[in-house]
Amino acid sequence: MEKSAGVLSWDEETKMPPSGAEARAEQRATLNRIAHERNVSPDLGELLEELRPFEEEHDFESFEASLIRVARRDYEKAVRVPPELRAEMTRAGSQAYQGWLRAREAEDYGVMLPHLERNLELRRQYVACFEPAGDPYDVVLDDYEPGMKTHEVVTIFDALKAALLPWLHAVGDADPIDDSCLRGHFPRTAQRRFSLGMLEQWGMDRAAWRLDRTVHPFATSFAPTDIRLTTNFHEDSLHGILSCLHEFGHGIYERQVDPRYTRSPLAQGVSSAFHESQSRMWENLVGRRISTWRFFYPKLQVEFPEQFGDVSLETFHRSLNKVQPSFRRVDADEVTYCLHIILRFELERAMLSGELSLKDLPDAFNAKMREYLGLQPPDVVVGVLQDVHWSDMTMGYFPTYALGNVVSVQLWERAEADLGDLDDQFERGEFGSLREWLRENVHRHGRAFTPQELLQRVTGSSMDPAPYLHYLERKLGELFGAKVA
Amino acid sequence: MEKSAGVLSWDEETKMPPSGAEARAEQRATLNRIAHERNVSPDLGELLEELRPFEEEHDFESFEASLIRVARRDYEKAVRVPPELRAEMTRAGSQAYQGWLRAREAEDYGVMLPHLERNLELRRQYVACFEPAGDPYDVVLDDYEPGMKTHEVVTIFDALKAALLPWLHAVGDADPIDDSCLRGHFPRTAQRRFSLGMLEQWGMDRAAWRLDRTVHPFATSFAPTDIRLTTNFHEDSLHGILSCLHEFGHGIYERQVDPRYTRSPLAQGVSSAFHESQSRMWENLVGRRISTWRFFYPKLQVEFPEQFGDVSLETFHRSLNKVQPSFRRVDADEVTYCLHIILRFELERAMLSGELSLKDLPDAFNAKMREYLGLQPPDVVVGVLQDVHWSDMTMGYFPTYALGNVVSVQLWERAEADLGDLDDQFERGEFGSLREWLRENVHRHGRAFTPQELLQRVTGSSMDPAPYLHYLERKLGELFGAKVA
Repeated sequence: MEKSAGVLSWDEETKMPPSGAEARAEQRATLNRIAHERNVSPDLGELLEELRPFEEEHDFESFEASLIRVARRDYEKAVRVPPELRAEMTRAGSQAYQGWLRAREAEDYGVMLPHLERNLELRRQYVACFEPAGDPYDVVLDDYEPGMKTHEVVTIFDALKAALLPWLHAVGDADPIDDSCLRGHFPRTAQRRFSLGMLEQWGMDRAAWRLDRTVHPFATSFAPTDIRLTTNFHEDSLHGILSCLHEFGHGIYERQVDPRYTRSPLAQGVSSAFHESQSRMWENLVGRRISTWRFFYPKLQVEFPEQFGDVSLETFHRSLNKVQPSFRRVDADEVTYCLHIILRFELERAMLSGELSLKDLPDAFNAKMREYLGLQPPDVVVGVLQDVHWSDMTMGYFPTYALGNVVSVQLWERAEADLGDLDDQFERGEFGSLREWLRENVHRHGRAFTPQELLQRVTGSSMDPAPYLHYLERKLGELFGAKVA
Repeated sequence: MEKSAGVLSWDEETKMPPSGAEARAEQRATLNRIAHERNVSPDLGELLEELRPFEEEHDFESFEASLIRVARRDYEKAVRVPPELRAEMTRAGSQAYQGWLRAREAEDYGVMLPHLERNLELRRQYVACFEPAGDPYDVVLDDYEPGMKTHEVVTIFDALKAALLPWLHAVGDADPIDDSCLRGHFPRTAQRRFSLGMLEQWGMDRAAWRLDRTVHPFATSFAPTDIRLTTNFHEDSLHGILSCLHEFGHGIYERQVDPRYTRSPLAQGVSSAFHESQSRMWENLVGRRISTWRFFYPKLQVEFPEQFGDVSLETFHRSLNKVQPSFRRVDADEVTYCLHIILRFELERAMLSGELSLKDLPDAFNAKMREYLGLQPPDVVVGVLQDVHWSDMTMGYFPTYALGNVVSVQLWERAEADLGDLDDQFERGEFGSLREWLRENVHRHGRAFTPQELLQRVTGSSMDPAPYLHYLERKLGELFGAKVA
């Protein structure tokens, strides 16, 4: 049912004639309601109880035991929330989304405020459905990063801040990178052709993948054999290509889940942070790496000869890795991205606890922007109304973006330890050994293990920001010299 | 639920990467199973009983009374069939479809025979679920043409045969029409551009419609505000354009159903014959008419200057209306099309009654082809295995294609009586008054009336082949002179 609803959403974003929107919203709501009815049905609860002895007969790692364990966990969470509250959250969320669009149009936070208040109230009712936790934020975090606790996030984010803020100041004092080669005219068909070529080299097969155009890029899948990426190529920049690389990471994760798991609750990525670790790995660790571009840059020059004919690989690579504070989270570089996230996480916690009143949110947002990034948003559209996530007071999602960066380098280090230096392979256009390593160690397991269990299995460690910080330190040293890091 | 399953099917036919097929079949089966469970649930039966007094309070023509009446009729049919039989028919039908593909590949009817036997047995069990009817074929016919009886079809088809067979012989003796101008090279992009221009002139608005490419053209809709047509442009013919005109007729029917009916059982065309009357009207009565082409032919000449630059409108129009027996039903002209249908109808009745044994079906098919069309199929692929319909022993559908022709001219005559001569308007590219007449008199009612009620309301008559035969007689006279008709 959820996958079917996914097809309806994908069609809505990519193909549906605009006037179909209203009927489509009703159709999706119907599917989601019916799916939910089944997810919380007492029959399912009884079945899961009956299966306890069967589960115990099987190895913890077996398909059977994993399926029952994960299905029970899902069921126990789902039944906690009254259907009326869930329906009201959906309704209030849809209204708030429209409010968010209007508020951005009017550049007026006041338009948004009543929606935020209603949705925050509902979010608190949702939190109250679960046993009192050490921190109410634990409840919302668990929806995206199952099993993780807020205090663990705080520890990691404090470590990131302690390193990133000084580096950012040092970068500000260094000579800025000239990235003018990335501005120009890039015809869409050439961008699409180049992107598809690059993704196919990485392992996208046309029998199972599509790439379509949407306003906001995303990846979704309806089975491991049916992966849909979307992007948006703008003729004045290469952002669309980079977003393809990002979405490929999400897509390859779903593509490589064990096919036996298809149509079971195990058949998807284990958590938001793990999913984001894959997109960030392919976008940044692979996609902004000089060895990768030793292979692809000549092809890029063929597609855009006037733009890159006279630009060296090194100049292009430096441009691609420019570090500079900017207003929009989605455009942020590898150093500032985590700071965008950390400020949102801190504000979410303060809103949920009541420490921060919603009417003070715009000022609090701007204050953090000044403190972490040295920038004052000129209006609420790039300020507090920048992201859609808060329109319905979705919380707990933002931190997983930064945690994805952290996990991506933990996995990368393990992969390099197992596979040796990957740069030689990348230079020759060979990405298969990394991809297969990810399949074997991460992707195929789907949701069979918790994120914590999976990370421990692969790296022998819990979530740890040190590898990510070492990686950034090395990279900044290469880009800016010893002055910075 | 049915509309959501429709989105999954549309995506499967037009966009889905090929390897997604297996998972998609499961997803569609799940949606259909859940939809069926709800369609036969005792809760629904009780609700419909409770609503009887409410229905009686409302006018027969009101939305409320119509909805309850139609929902009850659907429910009463649905509960007659045990879920196990329905599931088995679906399963056997899927296997038979694969068998049909293999049998065509091998050009071997023997591959198909066991599938046909199994599906015919299930079809008979299905028929037995309904009260003994005068004719078992009434049961299968009712699924596509609710309320119509087999003997009524026989009467109409006998009248068609009595006129068509002599005409066809006369055409065979006349000078053949030279349609060589329709053979050549027609680039796909030009065909698509021309087709979209023509459909937009007819009333396709891009806010609510799409046109995509599939192997077999079809029309579907997910709401009156979301209409999807598909076609297949081949570079060596203009068939793809004509199939766009045909599918437009289906699309405009769904587009113009009263929007209040959306997401109710009333929100679709009332029967297969009525639906086909709309596609045949736009394809043939409008789409092969000289006044229509007085407007569009100059535009066609602009798209294909080398092909049509030196061809007169009259020559093009005669070519478009060529009459000549051929093997394939879907390529048949307006005279021979009904004969293809009638032979299939006669064979279906004989199979269902047991009068014709399945092992004798190929010979019986060929004998009828010789008798009605004077052609001996060279192999089973253009013979008995030509259409997909019989792979799962779907019966009752074929006759509605010919009945659609009949109804199309009954409606057309009424429209002309109301609107006056339409040719002046068509020549000026004005198709709005016909389209709006159809909305007002046919489309907006959806399934609120039975096909018989609707036809009586609009034309004051029951189904009657005379107008169709007059129309053909006039047309043949114009094309071939008094010798033929």
